[in-house]
Amino acid sequence: MRAAIMRDKKLVVDEIAEPEPGPGQVLVKTLACGVCGSDLHMLKFADRMVEMSARTGAPSVMDLSRDIVMGHEFCAEILDHGPNTSGNLKAGSRVCSIPIAFGPDGFNAVGYSNQVPGGYAEQMVLNEMLLLEVPNGLSSEHAALTEPMAVGYHAVEKANIEGGEVPIVIGCGPVGLAVIAALKLKGVGPIIAVDYSPARRRFAETLGADIIVDPSEHSPYEQWEKIAVPEGVDQSNPMMMMMMANQIRPGVIFECVGVPGVLQDILEGAPRSARIVVAGVCMERDHIEPIFGINKELNVQFVLGYAPEEFATTLQKIAEGEIDVAPLITDKVGVDGVANAFEQLASPDRHAKILVEPWR
Amino acid sequence: MRAAIMRDKKLVVDEIAEPEPGPGQVLVKTLACGVCGSDLHMLKFADRMVEMSARTGAPSVMDLSRDIVMGHEFCAEILDHGPNTSGNLKAGSRVCSIPIAFGPDGFNAVGYSNQVPGGYAEQMVLNEMLLLEVPNGLSSEHAALTEPMAVGYHAVEKANIEGGEVPIVIGCGPVGLAVIAALKLKGVGPIIAVDYSPARRRFAETLGADIIVDPSEHSPYEQWEKIAVPEGVDQSNPMMMMMMANQIRPGVIFECVGVPGVLQDILEGAPRSARIVVAGVCMERDHIEPIFGINKELNVQFVLGYAPEEFATTLQKIAEGEIDVAPLITDKVGVDGVANAFEQLASPDRHAKILVEPWR
Repeated sequence: MRAAIMRDKKLVVDEIAEPEPGPGQVLVKTLACGVCGSDLHMLKFADRMVEMSARTGAPSVMDLSRDIVMGHEFCAEILDHGPNTSGNLKAGSRVCSIPIAFGPDGFNAVGYSNQVPGGYAEQMVLNEMLLLEVPNGLSSEHAALTEPMAVGYHAVEKANIEGGEVPIVIGCGPVGLAVIAALKLKGVGPIIAVDYSPARRRFAETLGADIIVDPSEHSPYEQWEKIAVPEGVDQSNPMMMMMMANQIRPGVIFECVGVPGVLQDILEGAPRSARIVVAGVCMERDHIEPIFGINKELNVQFVLGYAPEEFATTLQKIAEGEIDVAPLITDKVGVDGVANAFEQLASPDRHAKILVEPWR
Repeated sequence: MRAAIMRDKKLVVDEIAEPEPGPGQVLVKTLACGVCGSDLHMLKFADRMVEMSARTGAPSVMDLSRDIVMGHEFCAEILDHGPNTSGNLKAGSRVCSIPIAFGPDGFNAVGYSNQVPGGYAEQMVLNEMLLLEVPNGLSSEHAALTEPMAVGYHAVEKANIEGGEVPIVIGCGPVGLAVIAALKLKGVGPIIAVDYSPARRRFAETLGADIIVDPSEHSPYEQWEKIAVPEGVDQSNPMMMMMMANQIRPGVIFECVGVPGVLQDILEGAPRSARIVVAGVCMERDHIEPIFGINKELNVQFVLGYAPEEFATTLQKIAEGEIDVAPLITDKVGVDGVANAFEQLASPDRHAKILVEPWR
């Protein structure tokens, strides 16, 4: 079968062997698979990714001298069933799954594995027990957005926003947009969305962000202050702040950029007692000045991924039209177009999500 | 009056003018005042402290070219009342106060101010409305420990420990010991206490820590695992961890060191989903690798100081014998001994808290 393969830290298109479903697994045809920022990271910082997954005790570590087929945001169609499967979902059923494949040899992260191919290949193997049927009427393209939208859903669940807190979304790439969609779903607002890119600010607006900030022109924290702090309250007066604390709407800041320096910017700018949810995945060494966190008693919650039930809820909400993913899909390519898609996505001025359709 | 003064970034003893109580203020005689690690920091990193207090928007910023009398952990005796005071507490009453003095010219941090002297001077001015009478029978020495113990009390309050969480206290200097005392008060345990210094490990044991760890010999996280993770659970197996999550006692790690590198050590060592309470005050630029926080979905809560009611509760608990501060007082000096006390405290092998008695 054909696949876009990471080989010697480059993307190439080649024929590889079709995977065989093991016990409990099904063979699927990849219908659509999104290109994720983590994949761009992987191509650019492969050694670092492998080093970090070893240092953080990941259950399996990739061997970069062997082929890796990336792609973990997929919708697929069942082709065949392996041994010890129930067959509840017949061949021809369209499915999503969290990107994990497991068998007697352990766990594989679909899309970051030498053992199993990801969604940039024509076929994959998935575990039957993890499959979710795509609800009737939902397109495969939109279903493929379940995975990235689940990341935002989880970040907002972990944020556990309570009455009156004002969300500030720093960075409106796919992660930030997924966070905005999840905030809308929860009815939390007004949502302050921040990005240097005009294109990304437009996406944020389309997804329902209420206040759109270009940080080269305005501080998002000034926008927060207008909404959250009653007039006449002097934030530099600690006694007044203590007395007025109940009348100030706290900030909940979503870090959706994931590059060094952003966390420190947030620590410096954040209002007192703010909570910061780190959804951006910074793979590099970063610096902070803890005294800013200390003086303002900030809270930093790092988040990653989603629980299986959050993934399932996200698929359901997309199918019900409560999360509108249509505006996010800005291009579709075959496996031959993957390398170019990676290049396009490296500059944020046009695309949100590019889908790979390996059957093309 | 005599005072130990920070002048030209050095500690000197000299005569200075007695302070005059303004409206709402009382004049007090300093009975005992603890030397705080922050004071050592101030002497060593004065420029940095001033720069940071300016950058973090502190209400008043010190001028290092003028005298500063430090000391903010005090017990004092009322000598006289300024204008517009009620006189409810008579001259001769012994009092504690949060170290803030305010008047028409604004707020002053007692002990970090050019305007008002701190507790390394024979006399201070305090605001009547902030005074707490020292309960009958409580020694002035022990009452002076209210401020540092309140720091630990606040850190544990902010940690909001829930059923089954296991506290790990990294660093057993005065902040760590105050945290241990507050954990005992709350009945939370077993308490794992960690320090390289044998003397500090002994203090931790005296204060009631249950498991004492020398990190050059054992990992505190291995000790946590013995207590918190049921036998047979393989932490490197994500599926098993997900299914067993309810049976694992999460870790709550108190960072009580405050030097660069410690937070990153904790991010690397902490178990999945751990909460980290940063009570150590790191004034320097620090580095972290966020991916460790991300992969384990760690939470970092920075804390500082205490609320006035936490300060009052701490004084009460010391008076009732529920927080035993006696073992912490390892020396007492006059103003002439302050400079030497600072030097002694820079190496952790003997002292916990040295009290200054300026009347000596």
